Amino acid sequence: MKVMIMGMDGYLGWPLAMHLSARGHNVTGIDNFSRRRNVEELKSHSATPIKSMSDRLKAYQRKTGKKLDFYEGDLTKTDFTDKIIAEEKPDCIVHLGEIPSAPFSMIDVEHCNYTQTNNIVGTNNILFAIKKHAPKCHLLKLGTMGEYGTPNIDIPEGFFEIEYRGRKDTLPFPRQPGSWYHLSKVHDSHNIMFACKIWGLASTDIMQGVVHGIVTDEMTSDDLLTRFDFDEAWGTALNRFCAQAVIGNELTPYGKGGQTRGYIALRDSVQCMTLAAENPPKDGEYRVLNQFDETYSVNDLAKHVVKVSGEFGIDAKIWSIENPRLEKEEHYYHPDREKLPALGFKPTNDLDAELRLTIPKLMKYRSRIEEKKEAIMPKIKWRG
Amino acid sequence: MKVMIMGMDGYLGWPLAMHLSARGHNVTGIDNFSRRRNVEELKSHSATPIKSMSDRLKAYQRKTGKKLDFYEGDLTKTDFTDKIIAEEKPDCIVHLGEIPSAPFSMIDVEHCNYTQTNNIVGTNNILFAIKKHAPKCHLLKLGTMGEYGTPNIDIPEGFFEIEYRGRKDTLPFPRQPGSWYHLSKVHDSHNIMFACKIWGLASTDIMQGVVHGIVTDEMTSDDLLTRFDFDEAWGTALNRFCAQAVIGNELTPYGKGGQTRGYIALRDSVQCMTLAAENPPKDGEYRVLNQFDETYSVNDLAKHVVKVSGEFGIDAKIWSIENPRLEKEEHYYHPDREKLPALGFKPTNDLDAELRLTIPKLMKYRSRIEEKKEAIMPKIKWRG
Repeated sequence: MKVMIMGMDGYLGWPLAMHLSARGHNVTGIDNFSRRRNVEELKSHSATPIKSMSDRLKAYQRKTGKKLDFYEGDLTKTDFTDKIIAEEKPDCIVHLGEIPSAPFSMIDVEHCNYTQTNNIVGTNNILFAIKKHAPKCHLLKLGTMGEYGTPNIDIPEGFFEIEYRGRKDTLPFPRQPGSWYHLSKVHDSHNIMFACKIWGLASTDIMQGVVHGIVTDEMTSDDLLTRFDFDEAWGTALNRFCAQAVIGNELTPYGKGGQTRGYIALRDSVQCMTLAAENPPKDGEYRVLNQFDETYSVNDLAKHVVKVSGEFGIDAKIWSIENPRLEKEEHYYHPDREKLPALGFKPTNDLDAELRLTIPKLMKYRSRIEEKKEAIMPKIKWRG
Repeated sequence: MKVMIMGMDGYLGWPLAMHLSARGHNVTGIDNFSRRRNVEELKSHSATPIKSMSDRLKAYQRKTGKKLDFYEGDLTKTDFTDKIIAEEKPDCIVHLGEIPSAPFSMIDVEHCNYTQTNNIVGTNNILFAIKKHAPKCHLLKLGTMGEYGTPNIDIPEGFFEIEYRGRKDTLPFPRQPGSWYHLSKVHDSHNIMFACKIWGLASTDIMQGVVHGIVTDEMTSDDLLTRFDFDEAWGTALNRFCAQAVIGNELTPYGKGGQTRGYIALRDSVQCMTLAAENPPKDGEYRVLNQFDETYSVNDLAKHVVKVSGEFGIDAKIWSIENPRLEKEEHYYHPDREKLPALGFKPTNDLDAELRLTIPKLMKYRSRIEEKKEAIMPKIKWRG
């Protein structure tokens, strides 16, 4: 299968590229390297010392004898996106090429608009180019479980049948996103659903939980590492706790810590995206998959990190801090997760087993986390 | 009350400005005149020979002794929007300053992106400027009934309480918009709902039906006329039929003509917006109002236009044509309309009585419609 990965330089994009290539797919990547710049803007960097794309490509070819193709470019430039899709005519596009940070989008109006226009225009350009040049191409788009918010009812996978005033219909599940970034993903979902309807495109919209960890089978040497962010904007809850433990800082759950979300290990995210790519929806289908291993509250996560880091001689403490976000801190949370297991998804490790891989790996890069530790504590507030 | 009208040069903006001013409010308008340019791009023009903004302002002052303020500028320019809201600190902003055409947005990727970014960024800029400079300002935002699509259940006003798998919640009603333009309005609605939640802003999001007609009490002379579009992109169903009747062309419902929507006369739209502005929601409230007089199918509309134009000696015929859009042509449609009547809204005329005002007025401008009649028949197709 010819797969194009938008955002191949990213946390998920790079490991997915290697995994799909290892499975024999023909992989081409696109990136504009904005993530590297956007993390620098917040005076942070990846805990792992990642290589430049050209060094990554060389290292991968040296190790495996396989070649990954790559184009540098910006998906919001309509002509660029049109041209690469016209040239490559991929069977599948995995679209990870968006700005993925809630706090970054909440900094101010410029970051809000940058996040929303970048994500919406990039996705629209891909949709129009698929329609024009590769109408059978499967668009595998990364959304987020955060699109749903935390409703007081179960969360189905995208759609639900309801009865209202004695009549029935199957409707998109209402979205209640919690940041300008999460809103951009909701906007994308609506746009993609519409494109599938009017043009008969096939798309999988993945509502992904929070990704954590740093290990995949193909990341066999330091020059093949993916990035690992730990700052307030780009580091996600579990990864941030691991980084805090490794440098001997308190783990800082926000507020009451009852905020519950779905979490998924990096290797399982790669597994799920591969399953979805290799099992595409039918023409015209807009398929929504909820993608996570298990749900945890933030306090649960912190306790698991304390426990596992203790096994590595770290005496981690938990210190709750004021919540910079506006979110329910105690709530019902019960999302469905049936479609990916039906495609064959099996979580690889339980949370503790995965933490036993993440923490020692991070300990190796302790000095890099130390160097940017000022970037961990939250300064960006939802109320402005 | 100090009211700012974004998009004061438009079909609704201009009559609303005069009406609010006549009621004693202090009105300031903003426009970048993009509507005039965008209609020209499609080789059309307003049936009514509208004046420039400076002539309108002078004519209004001459007639009434009252002054309307006006700034020319583009709401997508963050500094401009920030500056005018900082200077004016309005009590209410009526936001009509968006690109409102479904077919225009469907032309190609550039028109899709232009419509979505223009509408989203303009609204975001207003939200951030209100938060910063006028947090008590009521944002009265024009959305569209088209945000809801045509579900097989009743359409409540924004939110509904549902039971799902034995649990209950009150959730935003799912949106199923039918064009890139309608999607932009859904994106706005989600963004505004979020701003109200995190910052405690007060907003009314009006889900407006299709507006028709040309008469309001304040439009007392030709130099105070508002625009009246009749082409495929900027003319809405009923107005287009009136224009077709006036030049002796067949009325052209799309497809089976069973497409049913809410319709509202221009004067009633002005009445409703005034009611909403004068009865603001409370701080932090995101209030959704469904705003229309009655629902009609496209075939019903055509029959009403045939009947009333007959009273003026016009022998109009109906000629159904292939539907350029992708939409259900026979469907359930039952939207609620309770909140505006509770605020005092009373439809002024029934459809025929309003048509008896629109059609003779348009007959006066028959030659202007003739001149651009090539722009009426649909060339923009939803399937591309």
